[in-house]
Amino acid sequence: MRANLTPDVALAASLFEGLHERSYDGVGVTRDAYGPGEQAAHDLVRAAAEGLRLETDIDAAGNLYMTLPGSDRAAKRIVLGSHLDSVARGGNYDGAAGVLAGLAAVAGMQEAGFTPARDITVLAVRAEEAGSWFPTSYPGSRAALGRLPAEVLEVRRMDTGRTLAEHMRGQGFDPDAVRAGTGRLGPANTAAYVEVHIEQGPVLDTAEIPVGIVTGIPGSRRLRDARVLGAYNHSGATPRRYRADAAIALAELAHRLDDHWAALETQGHALVATFCVLATTAEAGFTKIPGEARFQLDMRSVQPASVDAMMTELHRLIPRIEARRGVRFELGAETTSRAAPMDAAVQAGLAAAAGGLGIPFRSMPSGGGHDAAAFAEAGVPAGMLFVRNQNGSHNPNEAMRMEDFAAACAVLTRWAAAAAG
Amino acid sequence: MRANLTPDVALAASLFEGLHERSYDGVGVTRDAYGPGEQAAHDLVRAAAEGLRLETDIDAAGNLYMTLPGSDRAAKRIVLGSHLDSVARGGNYDGAAGVLAGLAAVAGMQEAGFTPARDITVLAVRAEEAGSWFPTSYPGSRAALGRLPAEVLEVRRMDTGRTLAEHMRGQGFDPDAVRAGTGRLGPANTAAYVEVHIEQGPVLDTAEIPVGIVTGIPGSRRLRDARVLGAYNHSGATPRRYRADAAIALAELAHRLDDHWAALETQGHALVATFCVLATTAEAGFTKIPGEARFQLDMRSVQPASVDAMMTELHRLIPRIEARRGVRFELGAETTSRAAPMDAAVQAGLAAAAGGLGIPFRSMPSGGGHDAAAFAEAGVPAGMLFVRNQNGSHNPNEAMRMEDFAAACAVLTRWAAAAAG
Repeated sequence: MRANLTPDVALAASLFEGLHERSYDGVGVTRDAYGPGEQAAHDLVRAAAEGLRLETDIDAAGNLYMTLPGSDRAAKRIVLGSHLDSVARGGNYDGAAGVLAGLAAVAGMQEAGFTPARDITVLAVRAEEAGSWFPTSYPGSRAALGRLPAEVLEVRRMDTGRTLAEHMRGQGFDPDAVRAGTGRLGPANTAAYVEVHIEQGPVLDTAEIPVGIVTGIPGSRRLRDARVLGAYNHSGATPRRYRADAAIALAELAHRLDDHWAALETQGHALVATFCVLATTAEAGFTKIPGEARFQLDMRSVQPASVDAMMTELHRLIPRIEARRGVRFELGAETTSRAAPMDAAVQAGLAAAAGGLGIPFRSMPSGGGHDAAAFAEAGVPAGMLFVRNQNGSHNPNEAMRMEDFAAACAVLTRWAAAAAG
Repeated sequence: MRANLTPDVALAASLFEGLHERSYDGVGVTRDAYGPGEQAAHDLVRAAAEGLRLETDIDAAGNLYMTLPGSDRAAKRIVLGSHLDSVARGGNYDGAAGVLAGLAAVAGMQEAGFTPARDITVLAVRAEEAGSWFPTSYPGSRAALGRLPAEVLEVRRMDTGRTLAEHMRGQGFDPDAVRAGTGRLGPANTAAYVEVHIEQGPVLDTAEIPVGIVTGIPGSRRLRDARVLGAYNHSGATPRRYRADAAIALAELAHRLDDHWAALETQGHALVATFCVLATTAEAGFTKIPGEARFQLDMRSVQPASVDAMMTELHRLIPRIEARRGVRFELGAETTSRAAPMDAAVQAGLAAAAGGLGIPFRSMPSGGGHDAAAFAEAGVPAGMLFVRNQNGSHNPNEAMRMEDFAAACAVLTRWAAAAAG
């Protein structure tokens, strides 16, 4: 019977359209975490789940659970999850693909009259793109797991200035319960968590392979609010030796650190390092030497030693640049996340499902962080399935093909049926 | 009689206070060119000139002429000029010091009962800080000289988006007459133009010398609207070799060009080069590789070969960076201004006046551009007198001491009396 399970990709396609309609902002899609954009997506997906007569439930943090009951309701469940929020002016597939793949899988099971041995829950996590809205990672999944530190509820959304707790409460949820650590999921009741996600880089597309099985999620060291302080002076009248040019000091730091990254790569390190923002401030203008510049730096690797090597170089360069250029760096708070390996048995199960279906796949590390990292850190066996995608993610030009999405849905459905069986 | 001429520095001090009151913006002073800020300054200065019973007149471009009549009204006049506009959140002395020094000089002559042999006109020029409001140089003085190209009237103020002609008309002036080239001043009716100005760099302050006699004004080559175009991609998931990072490409260009400037200095070149703006755009944000960055570049030297050498290096670097980093530079229009040597006889006269008063001075090039360059280019013998100043210019911390200003006024008054005699 399981061999006949076919995911309901048409349902997912229709929901992709609905999501796009509700969140198109004129450039891309914006589904702001704990804001109206994310909420509209949750409302649409919840309505679809109710149409499928799945059991729906929402926890204190607003995560949405859509469950196909298994024959043994007490058995550890399978969770197929991802998030519905997006970065500002982002694409329609990042996040949503995983939730809709889960719905396609359980809808396919229902259509075939298949009852799994254990519950299969499709999980729409809140605020995975928190990094672009709040200065934290995975608040939704960590709350679902009962592992969100209380202080994270006090971080403020970068655009609104309101805290995460205020945003939760504003959407009708219960930050006090989140603070108390009452999670719904954990190793005691969850057999495995699998997240379908578009690949956010060009690796699968370049290799012409439709799906990827993720080996691990990188850890990170990040500066979100770093500054360089110099002195504003007249750009014509201030000789070189009297300058304290914040912009050129930052340019030197960025260029030298980029050189160091290139050197580490030739030594076999695998990492990425990005100055996501590198900018003089609004005070800058023609005929002025920039007296201030700010930057955001995002460094990631599955190997902690690689980002540590970059941070060491940063701290070696800064005092030299400060002394030579008469500026001062203020790095602000550093945020970190640990690397998370994916569960070996889940990887093997996904590979077996793809192999059984004749779908080519590649085993590969993730580049970005994902909720699967929070599940792995909580001790839940976790895995991820990447879908080939054109033009990257976090931009309006994301261009996942539906046949690749269908391939990922087929692997997910086969794996879930086997894992739940 | 001339030896007893004492400039009315108290009048100037009172006008400095009045200007500050009318243009303080909470941070510095803002006297926007052809806007309410500049107009308020002109109104105050004109009222003071009328109080002194000077002849006042305003030309088609809004320049204000305040004339102490000489005994021979047909003789070529002496012009003591500067501007009253400022950069946004600038200082109170840049520009205004020259106009108030002129008023202090003629008021001192009146008080002593001194009638010059020829007219002495204090000139308040419009829009010298045009560079920070409109993408052009010296529109006011070039209009006064009948030398403003018609197309300059169509440039747009950077903040309002309205053209220079619209701004002139909005203040009640006559851009059509400016377009027709009917200037008031030129070599035929002007014996000399002298401009007092705060030094915009730290040279006099470091050398502990109160005044400087300017040898020349640098020429410039400038990019005001240059961009680097790459591709926005996910900062975690995009390996180094797939990136087209606009910010890091710009950082490399800026750092390497700065190194080239340092090398040219060791070879004896005297120049300045400033990335006044160097910035990712509003689209940038955490977890994104910057797909676009923009910059403004201001390069100046009294020696054209020095800025040409920098521009050559810029054009050598760009294709290399483009090829290696997958980005594209769009430099936009380049604006240029020619270097302007100051008149030798005017310099000698100012030196004689300072020497006669026992006031120490240094001969030095200007760093910034000034209206004196437009007069020199028009063939009017031009000179400049710098006043020691702390904390640079174009910022709220300009800190010229009144005793240094008084020294400059004394030199100016003595020179003007001699030149008009």
